[in-house]
Amino acid sequence: MSCPTPPDGGSLVSLGLVPAGPVSFLDGVGLVDHHCHSVVAADLDRPGFEALLTEGAGPAPGTSAFDSSLGFSVRRWCAPVLGLPPHAAPDDYVARRAEIGTGPASRALMRAAGTESLLVDHGFAAESLLGLDDLRDTAGVPVGEVVRLEAVAQDVADAGVDAAGYGDAVVAEVARRTAPGVRPLAVACKTVLAYRAGLDVDPRRPEPAEVAAAADAWLPRRAAEGATLRDPVLLRHGIWTGLDTGLPLQVHTGFGDVDEDLHRADPALLTGLARLVEPLGVPLMLLHTYPYHRQAAWLAQVFSCVHVDVSLAVPHVGPRSRDVIAEMLELAPFAKVLYASDAYGLPELHLLGALRFRAALGGLLERACATDEISPADAERVATMIARENARRVYARMPA
Amino acid sequence: MSCPTPPDGGSLVSLGLVPAGPVSFLDGVGLVDHHCHSVVAADLDRPGFEALLTEGAGPAPGTSAFDSSLGFSVRRWCAPVLGLPPHAAPDDYVARRAEIGTGPASRALMRAAGTESLLVDHGFAAESLLGLDDLRDTAGVPVGEVVRLEAVAQDVADAGVDAAGYGDAVVAEVARRTAPGVRPLAVACKTVLAYRAGLDVDPRRPEPAEVAAAADAWLPRRAAEGATLRDPVLLRHGIWTGLDTGLPLQVHTGFGDVDEDLHRADPALLTGLARLVEPLGVPLMLLHTYPYHRQAAWLAQVFSCVHVDVSLAVPHVGPRSRDVIAEMLELAPFAKVLYASDAYGLPELHLLGALRFRAALGGLLERACATDEISPADAERVATMIARENARRVYARMPA
Amino acid sequence: MSCPTPPDGGSLVSLGLVPAGPVSFLDGVGLVDHHCHSVVAADLDRPGFEALLTEGAGPAPGTSAFDSSLGFSVRRWCAPVLGLPPHAAPDDYVARRAEIGTGPASRALMRAAGTESLLVDHGFAAESLLGLDDLRDTAGVPVGEVVRLEAVAQDVADAGVDAAGYGDAVVAEVARRTAPGVRPLAVACKTVLAYRAGLDVDPRRPEPAEVAAAADAWLPRRAAEGATLRDPVLLRHGIWTGLDTGLPLQVHTGFGDVDEDLHRADPALLTGLARLVEPLGVPLMLLHTYPYHRQAAWLAQVFSCVHVDVSLAVPHVGPRSRDVIAEMLELAPFAKVLYASDAYGLPELHLLGALRFRAALGGLLERACATDEISPADAERVATMIARENARRVYARMPA
Repeated sequence: MSCPTPPDGGSLVSLGLVPAGPVSFLDGVGLVDHHCHSVVAADLDRPGFEALLTEGAGPAPGTSAFDSSLGFSVRRWCAPVLGLPPHAAPDDYVARRAEIGTGPASRALMRAAGTESLLVDHGFAAESLLGLDDLRDTAGVPVGEVVRLEAVAQDVADAGVDAAGYGDAVVAEVARRTAPGVRPLAVACKTVLAYRAGLDVDPRRPEPAEVAAAADAWLPRRAAEGATLRDPVLLRHGIWTGLDTGLPLQVHTGFGDVDEDLHRADPALLTGLARLVEPLGVPLMLLHTYPYHRQAAWLAQVFSCVHVDVSLAVPHVGPRSRDVIAEMLELAPFAKVLYASDAYGLPELHLLGALRFRAALGGLLERACATDEISPADAERVATMIARENARRVYARMPA
Repeated sequence: MSCPTPPDGGSLVSLGLVPAGPVSFLDGVGLVDHHCHSVVAADLDRPGFEALLTEGAGPAPGTSAFDSSLGFSVRRWCAPVLGLPPHAAPDDYVARRAEIGTGPASRALMRAAGTESLLVDHGFAAESLLGLDDLRDTAGVPVGEVVRLEAVAQDVADAGVDAAGYGDAVVAEVARRTAPGVRPLAVACKTVLAYRAGLDVDPRRPEPAEVAAAADAWLPRRAAEGATLRDPVLLRHGIWTGLDTGLPLQVHTGFGDVDEDLHRADPALLTGLARLVEPLGVPLMLLHTYPYHRQAAWLAQVFSCVHVDVSLAVPHVGPRSRDVIAEMLELAPFAKVLYASDAYGLPELHLLGALRFRAALGGLLERACATDEISPADAERVATMIARENARRVYARMPA
Repeated sequence: MSCPTPPDGGSLVSLGLVPAGPVSFLDGVGLVDHHCHSVVAADLDRPGFEALLTEGAGPAPGTSAFDSSLGFSVRRWCAPVLGLPPHAAPDDYVARRAEIGTGPASRALMRAAGTESLLVDHGFAAESLLGLDDLRDTAGVPVGEVVRLEAVAQDVADAGVDAAGYGDAVVAEVARRTAPGVRPLAVACKTVLAYRAGLDVDPRRPEPAEVAAAADAWLPRRAAEGATLRDPVLLRHGIWTGLDTGLPLQVHTGFGDVDEDLHRADPALLTGLARLVEPLGVPLMLLHTYPYHRQAAWLAQVFSCVHVDVSLAVPHVGPRSRDVIAEMLELAPFAKVLYASDAYGLPELHLLGALRFRAALGGLLERACATDEISPADAERVATMIARENARRVYARMPA
C-alpha cells in the first residue's frame, strides 16, 4: 500500500494551470514528526472511533464526528489505504478496520505516512495506547520520547515525598528520565501549562521556599483525592526543571481538549517566558498554536529560541491546512517551522497529518515557483528544512 | 423577480474551471435564518439608508457607507431586484427604493432570499421596525421570536418591582413570554451580555440574595435616569433564567456596534459558561463570532451544547464570506453550524445574507467535489444540514 | 531602472484567466506612504543587512533571515533593481549593494517605489539613519515628519525639568515641534504606548497632579540610569498632548519588535480611547494592526475617527499581502484605509511595501471586476482612495 496523494486545495498542478512535473517538493522527503502520541491498541467500535475524531468527549447526541473536515478526510484518504473506495461510508470504514485488525490497520496507515522518526509524548492517558516499543515496530521508524513534566511531577507526588523534598525530587526524576542512556531516548521535555493554569502566569523560576509551600498545599490533596497538578508555582518549577536539562522544551499552545480556556492558551502570552529563555539557548517549541499561529510566528521571528508548528490543526482542518500553513509562513522564518502531527490514538491522524502537510507545503511552494516568487532550488531546500532539517538541527538528540 | 446568483469569489464553475452543471448544492434549499431582526417600516433617505449599512452611527464625515464591501454588494446584487442595472449609483439606488416604496421593496428583497423561516430578535430598537406580523407578511414565511433577556429585565424594572421581588419577577415574565401558547411563537432566549458587561464575567448562577442586592443598586438608577442594565449579577440572573426555560440560548459574540469592547466579546471567554451548560442539555448558540469564528468553532467541537454561526459577517464581508465560512468549518462539526443573516433594519441585509451564504457554502462544496475531497451526495447532505436541518434539530419549536 | 511588477498571488490577469489589459488599477498612481522611517546611511555587511530583515535582534544562530517570506522577496524583486537576476544569492545581493554604494542603491530602490510623499517617524534609533533632508533627496519626494511623543518626552526630561514643570514642558515642546513653520513639516503625532505599557491602560487624560507625581518618580530614574519612559500616566499625558494639537495621532498596534507583548498591542484594546476621541474630530491612525487587522477594521467601521493600515505586514508577508489586505477590507470602510510601508532602515522595505501593496490591492480589484462585484470605474476610484486620497483627506498638512 503506497501513500495516497491528495490534490491540495489550490495546487496549480492539480488545477491544470501549470504542467504537472517534477515540482512536488515533498515527494520522497521523510518527515520528522517532532510531536505526536501513540495509537490505541484495542479494536474500536464506531463510538470509540468517533470519540477520537474530536477534541471533545465525543460528537454531540444526534450527530456524527464523521461530519467534519477531519471525518471526511478519513473517509477520503484513509479508506483506500485499507482497501476501500474513497468516500467509504463511516460504518463500512469502521467495519473494515475491525476486519483487518487494529494492529495491521495501524501498521498500514502509519507506514503510508512516510515519516522517518517520531518524537512521542507518552505521558497522557497512555494506558490504552501501544507502548513505545510496539509503536516503533508498528510505524517502522525510530521513536524518541518527550518527557511530560506534569506527569513526572504527579508520579513523584504519588511515589510519596514531603513538601520540603518535593522540588528536589522532581529535579532528580526529570534528570533520571532524560539521562542519555535511557531507552527510548528522551529528546525533549514538554509542559501542558496551558491546560493546567493557563499561559498567563508569572514566567519566572520560583524560589525553593515557594515550591515547598505550594507542595505543602497540593500534596495532601493529591494523596486524598488525586487532585491534578494545577498550582502555578509547581507548574513553573516543572518548566524550569525542564529548561535546566538543556533539552528543547515543548509547550502546548492553541487549541486542544475541553480542559483548557482557549484564550489563555494564546502563545503570545509566552512572551515573558521567551524573554527569560532567550539568553539560555534552550529551544522553546510552541506546539499547535492554531488559531493563534500568526502570533506564534511573530514570536518565532523575534526570539531566537522560539520554534513553531501547526501540528494538531493540520489533520483537523483538512484541505484548509494549506491556508493555515501559509498564514504561519507569513512571519515565521522558514528555519523555525517544524512538522508535527500531534496524532493521538488513531493511526489515521498520523497519516493525515503527513499527507496534508505534504500537499499543503508542496502546493504552496509549487505556486511560489509558478509565480516566480522563489526558485525551484530554493523551494526544494525550504521543503526539506521544514520537513526534517529544522528538527534535526534543533533536537540535539534524535532516535536512531 | 427571482433571486440573483452571484459568482462567488472563487467558484470553479464561475471561473470556468469545471463544467457548470447540477452542482449548486444550495439551489432550491430553503434557509432557516435562526437569528435576524425586523426591517424599517418608513421610507429612508440616503443618510438614513447609509446609517444602516454600518455598525457605527453612520459613515465618517466626508465618506460614504456605500464605499465598503457591504455597500458595493447592495449596488451589485440588490439593485437588479429593484429593477436597476447592477452597480447602480448610490443616489439612484436610494431614489428607486423610495419610488417603489419601502413596503414593496422590502417584500421584493426579502422574498428573493429564499428563506423558509425567520427567528427574530425584536427586543432592540423595535419602535421603527415592522411588527412581527407585518414582517411575516412581508417575508412571506413563518416568524418565531427570540426573547431578548435584557429587554425583559428592563421591562420588568420599568413596570415597577422592588429589589426583593425583582429576581422572581424576571423569572415569571420570561416564563410568560416563552409560554408555548404565545404568538408569535417564542423559540429561544438571547443575551447581549457582550454589550453590557463583556463575556469575561463569572458565569455562575447568582444567589437570590446577590440578585436582590444588585437590583437594589440598579432599580433606583433605572427609575431615575433610565440606566441600561449592565450589572453582571443581574445579567447572569437573566442568562440562568433563560437557560432554565430549556429553550436554546443565543449569545451575542464577536463584532457588533460601538457599545461593546470587541476583545471582551471573544466567544472563547464563554468556555466557563459552556462547562456549566454542558450537562444541562440546553443548546448554546454563539452568534456572529467573527473575527473570533475559529475560536467559536473550537467550542462547537469540544462542547456538545455549543452551536455557531457567522451571521452578521456574511452580508458585511461580501465575496469574502466564502473565506470566513471556510475558516469556521476548519474545526466546527458540520452538524453544529447554522445559517443566520443577523439582518437589522434593511431587507437588503436579509437578501445579501442568504445570497452570499448560498454562494459561499455552495462554492466551497463545489470545490470539495471538484478536488474529490467529498462525494456529491455528502456535499448535498452537508449543504442541507447547515442551511436548515441543524436549526430544525436544535430548535425544538419552529414557527409554522 | 523602472518599477518591477510582481504577479500577485492569484491575479486573474497573471494566471491568464482574464485578458491582460487596462485593469491594473494601481499603475501610475502615486502612493502616500503615511508612516515610514528613514534608511541606513552606512554600508551594510551581510549580518547588518540580515538584522534589518527581521523584527528580532537578528536571525537565530545557524539560520538566515533571507530564509523568510521577506528575504525571498528581496532576492526576487529588489535584485533586478540593482542589476542582478531575480533570485540572486544572498551573498551576491549584499555584495552588489556594496559595489553600487548604499546611497545610489537606496536612491534606485526608493525611486522604484512610485511613492509621491513620505510621512516619516524619525524619533526611533535615528542616529544611523539618513536625516530627513537627505531622505527627501534620496527618495526624490516631499517628506513630512511624524512627531514621536515618547521621544519628545524623553528629550524634555533630558534637557532638565522638575516634576512640577514636566507636564507643561512637554506641552510646550510638542507645540514647538508641531508649529506650522517647522521644517520638515510636522504632519502628525505618534505614540508607541504598545511598546511602553501596552494598549490596555486607562485611556483618560490624567490630572496635572497625577502627571507631576508620576514625573517625580520617573525623572530621577531617567537622570540616573536613562530609564525609558514606561509610566502609564506620563504616556497618557503624551497622548493627550498630541491629541490637543489637533493633528492626526498615529498609534503603533499589532506586531513589532521584541519590546512589546503582542497581545497587549491588540488594537481592540483602544476601544476606550476611541470613544473619548470620537467627539474631538481628531483622526486616530491605527498602524500595522496585523495580526489583529480584522479587529482594527471593525474599529474603523464603528468610529468615525479611526483609520487603519496593514503597513508593516505588507513587505513582511510577501505574496500573502493580498490575503491580509482582503481581510482588512472585509469590514473596513474603503475611505478609512491608508497605505504605509513602515519601512525602517532598508530602502528595500520602501520598495517592497509599495510593490506588494500595488499588486495586492490591484489584484483584489481586478478580481472584483472579473467577477462583476464592482465596476471598473469604482475599482479605479477605490484604488486611488486607498493609495493616496484618503491620506490627503485625513492629513490636513501634507509636505510639498
